[in-house]
Amino acid sequence: MTNKKEIIAGIIIIGNEVLSGRTKDINTSTIAIWLNSLGIEVKEVRVIPDDEAIIIETVNTLRKKYNYIFTTGGIGPTHDDITAQSISNAFNLEYGFHKEAFSILENYYNPGEFTEGRQKMAKMPTSAKLIINPSSGAPGFYVENVFCLPGVPSILKSMLGGLNNVLVGGDLVLSKTLNLRTVESEIAKSLSEVQNKNNDVEIGSYPFFRAGKLGVSIVLRSTDQKKIDHCCDQILNFVKIKDIEILREI
Amino acid sequence: MTNKKEIIAGIIIIGNEVLSGRTKDINTSTIAIWLNSLGIEVKEVRVIPDDEAIIIETVNTLRKKYNYIFTTGGIGPTHDDITAQSISNAFNLEYGFHKEAFSILENYYNPGEFTEGRQKMAKMPTSAKLIINPSSGAPGFYVENVFCLPGVPSILKSMLGGLNNVLVGGDLVLSKTLNLRTVESEIAKSLSEVQNKNNDVEIGSYPFFRAGKLGVSIVLRSTDQKKIDHCCDQILNFVKIKDIEILREI
Repeated sequence: MTNKKEIIAGIIIIGNEVLSGRTKDINTSTIAIWLNSLGIEVKEVRVIPDDEAIIIETVNTLRKKYNYIFTTGGIGPTHDDITAQSISNAFNLEYGFHKEAFSILENYYNPGEFTEGRQKMAKMPTSAKLIINPSSGAPGFYVENVFCLPGVPSILKSMLGGLNNVLVGGDLVLSKTLNLRTVESEIAKSLSEVQNKNNDVEIGSYPFFRAGKLGVSIVLRSTDQKKIDHCCDQILNFVKIKDIEILREI
Repeated sequence: MTNKKEIIAGIIIIGNEVLSGRTKDINTSTIAIWLNSLGIEVKEVRVIPDDEAIIIETVNTLRKKYNYIFTTGGIGPTHDDITAQSISNAFNLEYGFHKEAFSILENYYNPGEFTEGRQKMAKMPTSAKLIINPSSGAPGFYVENVFCLPGVPSILKSMLGGLNNVLVGGDLVLSKTLNLRTVESEIAKSLSEVQNKNNDVEIGSYPFFRAGKLGVSIVLRSTDQKKIDHCCDQILNFVKIKDIEILREI
């Protein structure tokens, strides 16, 4: 990769429901695509249980390894929502009512409806900065480089835009996809030769089955559009020679 | 948890396409649900890039931590498929043509079609045991407690059944789900009280949005059905008092 300024991130998915297979995680994809648009690359994802000791250990390991960490899940009002408390302990910060969060939630609910159950959502590291929630009131928060988001995909998605000006991105990683009507083994050797001649472009090969037919998506990624185009030309060369149908170019 | 005999597993998802957000991982859910049916619990998932050093380090860390490790992805014929070689190096085993795998693939393809590209799929730790692939010929493999599966979801799924008699499971974790027409904050306090009285049952609370309406799924998990039922009765008690609609009982 020619990433002159590489900014990297890790994601921590907190939730027994993902580990049990009950819930399929789609937040990783949402966060990764959004981060890519800011020039930030996700290098690692960990899915861990609702267990304070494990949350603390994972956060403290990964926050030193990456520029940014994003956690999802565990910031709701129920007993199994322990992310805010765990983050407080990971950073040795006071856990309690966050003044601004409390005031946001107090205004969000009708008089009398800001119950004890709901008040728990204002509890977090008292010195944390907030991530505004345009969907359902309860804010996320961040401490240093650790950003804590909810687990519900639609709510999480609505909160990301508020962070665009908080994060500092690197060089954008550009990509180009070629969808071919072929199988991987038909192109493996030629593709390997192209990869060897283009070390600055990451070439991924992904078989797919669509409408009962086999195909392969070739994904080229680099921070340099010219290098992607140059590499793409070389692939199109052998694709033509092998008489492989190109299905769509994204 | 009252797991008298707890058998635990980790999953390693190998693939830049998941980290870039291009592909949403659904293999974790497939593997976790299948493992649960054998009495094996997934305790951690890591998504890592197609990078040999990282694959080796992750495999060698996790295989000591869990009874079983499952990797997905990177066992195809292209240059970015480096799992088999990485596993060989993680275990300091010879990497080369696996006799039985070579013979399976040779028989699978028509004469003349078992090309150099396809032959790469027979390369792995030469002493590995095979995981038969009923979908597309190319087998997975395992070394000690590390099981290497492909990334394509339909193929992966078709291969799991062949391992049922290889894995040794523990006590089955049973579960019961209550879907309620409510919001989490309405039940948080009552649910917390039930959790405190039932330490042997793991109670998860998951808000959902279906057909534009809010609801909460309460998931009870334990190895003891009686304890689940007892705990469920206590939840149904406060659900009745609060006049909350029960949507469906799975």
